[in-house]
Formats: sequence, structure tokens, C-alpha cells
Amino acid sequence: MAVQLSSKEDYTNLLDKYDTWLFDCDGVLWEGDRLIDGATEVLGILRRQKKSVLFVTNNATKSRKNYKKKFDKLSVEAHVDEIFGSAFAAAVYISSVIKLPKEKKVYVIGMSGLEEELQEEGIVTLGGTDPADNTLTPFDLKDWERDPAVGAVLCGLDTSVNYTKLSKAFQYLIKDPNCAFLATNEDSTYPTADGLLPGAGAVSAPLRFALGKDPVSIGKPAGTMLECIKAKHDFDPARTIMVGDRLNTDILFGQNGGLATLLVLTGITKEWEVLGPNPSPIVPDYITNSIGDLRCLGP
Amino acid sequence: MAVQLSSKEDYTNLLDKYDTWLFDCDGVLWEGDRLIDGATEVLGILRRQKKSVLFVTNNATKSRKNYKKKFDKLSVEAHVDEIFGSAFAAAVYISSVIKLPKEKKVYVIGMSGLEEELQEEGIVTLGGTDPADNTLTPFDLKDWERDPAVGAVLCGLDTSVNYTKLSKAFQYLIKDPNCAFLATNEDSTYPTADGLLPGAGAVSAPLRFALGKDPVSIGKPAGTMLECIKAKHDFDPARTIMVGDRLNTDILFGQNGGLATLLVLTGITKEWEVLGPNPSPIVPDYITNSIGDLRCLGP
Repeated sequence: MAVQLSSKEDYTNLLDKYDTWLFDCDGVLWEGDRLIDGATEVLGILRRQKKSVLFVTNNATKSRKNYKKKFDKLSVEAHVDEIFGSAFAAAVYISSVIKLPKEKKVYVIGMSGLEEELQEEGIVTLGGTDPADNTLTPFDLKDWERDPAVGAVLCGLDTSVNYTKLSKAFQYLIKDPNCAFLATNEDSTYPTADGLLPGAGAVSAPLRFALGKDPVSIGKPAGTMLECIKAKHDFDPARTIMVGDRLNTDILFGQNGGLATLLVLTGITKEWEVLGPNPSPIVPDYITNSIGDLRCLGP
Repeated sequence: MAVQLSSKEDYTNLLDKYDTWLFDCDGVLWEGDRLIDGATEVLGILRRQKKSVLFVTNNATKSRKNYKKKFDKLSVEAHVDEIFGSAFAAAVYISSVIKLPKEKKVYVIGMSGLEEELQEEGIVTLGGTDPADNTLTPFDLKDWERDPAVGAVLCGLDTSVNYTKLSKAFQYLIKDPNCAFLATNEDSTYPTADGLLPGAGAVSAPLRFALGKDPVSIGKPAGTMLECIKAKHDFDPARTIMVGDRLNTDILFGQNGGLATLLVLTGITKEWEVLGPNPSPIVPDYITNSIGDLRCLGP
């Protein structure tokens, strides 16, 4: 049963229990381009209490450097090395976990941020933002030559996804059983300030359906993301809390990693999904309406 | 256990048993733009024996009139009223089964053939080939107004599928629980002369994934297609055979409709899937290598 936090004492106890605070961003700190009320004050309180603050996002459209600009624009203090995105985690996974040989390439369905993170890890990419693949002109297999060096297909959110990219990715995967099928994350939807749009999971769904198999997903709730964080930051899982707005990504991610979890209700998950008559099997340790509720801890 | 046909006697018995012959086209009569050897001769033999010959295709990119041109180009005799496509069946389904009111509209992810069939049934369409929706420029909800008249979203194979179309379709479906979610067909792949590409099922997969629900699928193996044929042609199911190359569409369609089924091996399904150690649970009544095998019945 999730503990509903409401009094100053509840929040003070929470603060005492956890030294490392992992935050999802969209739906927790902001919604599209609108800051959640009180988010900056609460991050300030945590920093003044010498808590470690890390940002863990499935957003793979931006590199960490570019994602930092979003924090700057909304005047939220953050450092690039505190930001962990699924694009960065995917790059680390390809270079360090599956150890794709350097002469191999990755065919990308995704945006510039994903390409940048891969290229920073020394990975050669095809597709992605290449103008030749960002087209609605009909794709014909006979005008195309498959590059035998492609050793993985990686899908992230791509608002320029099209039949040419999907067809090439599909061909790489069916023609070479050793070609890895990867997704930055499987979020079904993507929250914007004006409503939901199809998420990264929807972008890889055509390949999933055409191939009849699922990709290896790197972002939350998979453990790969936490491995990336562990490689860069020392923290005690028993004194770490994951704050998020989605049960099946953020909260499950925290639980998979042995962390405490705090659900906020400013994003995707609605209160009835947790406290209603047919609650989700994924139960967070704590619930609060908004990250702004922790403002009561401030001066 | 499927009966493997090989002798002239086998084929003569088959001819005697069935008066109505339903044919899938891609992978049976042709493969892309290449005619299957002997296909026209066999159709000629059937017609001379006064058999009813009908063509039943999940291809929803072409209207029946346009699909007829494909027969003409390959010099295969066919009449428009012998051709049943999933685009036509979808139009009939919308106007006659769900009886969408005339003032309602259908948001289409699909190509001109699908729009034509809908428009011939008097259905107003949005999306489809509209240049405004055939774009790779980023889609922003705040620049868009949802049309409250949209009462259904219909997805078919669309080689211009893009994030704008998917986002609009998604919005129509999540904002209005009464908006019908339809697919012309769920073929995972689409055979071309040069290989497989993602099929109509892959095009609707992002919506399926983002919504967490499946569309009502109209084409084979669903019974809607057979209802359409029954409305136009008299036939005795006990003396009717469905000839196809896919177990999970053609053969299942025939079985669902109480028809006999003949699998040919010139398309998607490979012999080992039916006769190997782990055969598919979908078992055709008969198997032959190619429709051309029936040439032995000719003069």
C-alpha cells in the first residue's frame, strides 16, 4: 500500500531517509514548456541539504548537452553530469555492453540528440537526420543497397519517422539475424504542454509488429539506465529514491533497481490508478500530488 | 493434415469439387510485378470450366478500379466486380455495418485507393493524401484544431505514413471514446518483387501501441470481407475454395468462412511451416507448390 504524504512531518521524514534523489523530468519538474509549481524551490532545498540530485529521462530526442538547455530555459539548476538520458544510455549499451565492433554501424530511427550521443561514444550512424532518409517519396528496395556493416538498429522517438526509415530498418533486421534490435525506451505516449502524442514505443511499434519480436529497451524501466548511473555516481540504493509520474516506467525502474519510489500526480498516472478499486500491480512507496508539496521543507 | 497435391488426378478431383474459386493475388498470381508462371493459363482453364473466379486482396492502397489495371498490365483477365479489396470492404463496413452517420467523417491513414473507395460510398474523409498531412514538418498540437465530426480512424498501408498523421489519428481516438478504430487489414509485411516491406499492420501498430488497444480489422482473415462478397455473389461455401499464400490471412479467412483452402508456396508461407516438425496450428486442406501446377488440367 502506497503511503500518501501530506504533513510537513511526512516530508521531513522523507528528506531524512534519502541522500540521492533521482528525478524524472517531464510530468514531474515540468509539463512541456511549463514548469511544475514549486519544482525549482524543492530542488534548491534538496541541494542546500547536500542531497545528490540526478535527472533520469527517457527523452532520447536530445543529447544531455541539449537537454541541459531545457533546464536553463526554465531556470532549473542542473549540470550535464547530473543528467542521464536514454540516448546516452543506449550509446553506452552499444559500446560497452554488446560491444559492437568499431567497424560496425548503427541504423538510427531517431533525432539529432540520439545521433550526437552515439557519435560521442565513437559509434558510426546511418539514417537518423540524414536528409536522404527524411523523405516521403516512395521507397523502392531495388533503388537501395543494404550496408553490410550495420550491426544494430536503434529506435527512439522520431517525429520524422517515415516509411523509408522503417523499411530500411526492417530490411537490416530481417536480412541479418545478428543485427541487434534496440529501442531507447518504450514509452507509449509523449507528454507535451498541449496533450499527449505517440511516444518512442509507438515509433518502434511498426518494426515490432512486422518482425513479430520486441526490441531490447534501454531506458526506464530497464536496468541498463541504472547501470549507466552507477558507473558515474556512487550511491547507496537503500538511501536513494526515484521520483516519477509513470508507474510502468519510473516507479518500476526504481523498484527494479531496489530504490524507494515516490509517485507524483502531475503527469501521466492518475490517482485512481493507484488508489482506486482496481489499482495497478505497480505500487509506489509514496505518493504526493506534486513535487511542489515538498516546498513546506523550505525556509 | 494437409493433402499435398501432385498428380493430374489430384488436380482433376479438386476442379470437380469446387465451383467458386477465391484467389489472393500477391504471392499467388503474381509477386510484385512478376506473374507467377502458369497463373493466366490456370485462370483460363477455370473460366472455360464455368467456374466462378473472384479475387480477394488485402491490398488497400488501390481502389478496385485501379487494382484492375494491375491485372490488365499483367494480361490477367479480371472484371471489376470480381475484385474484392480490403479498402472496398472497409467502406462497406463503415457505411453498412457501423452505419456511420452521413455528417460524420473518417480520418484516414492510407493512400488514394482507400480514399476513393470511401468516397464512392459517400463517406467524407480527412487525412489520407491531403498534402497538409503528408509532411515531415514537426507536428504541434497547439497549431491544430480537432474536427469534432470525425467518427472513425481507418488505417491501411500508407507509404507516406508520418508523425503528423499518427498524432492526429491518436488525438481523435483518445479524445473521443466513441471514435471507431479500424484497420483495412493486419498483414505484418507487404511483399514486393524485391523483398518484404512493412505491411498495413505495421502502419497501424503505433496507434495500437500508444492506445493499448487493437483496431477492428476488416480484411482477411476477418469475416467482414466474406460478408461483402456474399452481398454481391451467390456461392455455396461447401463448393468454394480459397487459394492463398498466407496461413494467418488467406487460409484462416477461408476456414473462418467454412470454405476449403489451398495453400500455394510461391509467397510468404514456406513448406516447413506446414510440413515441418513444428507445424503452424493453421492447416490448409490442400497444398501445392504453385497455382501453375493446375496447368496440367488444360488442353
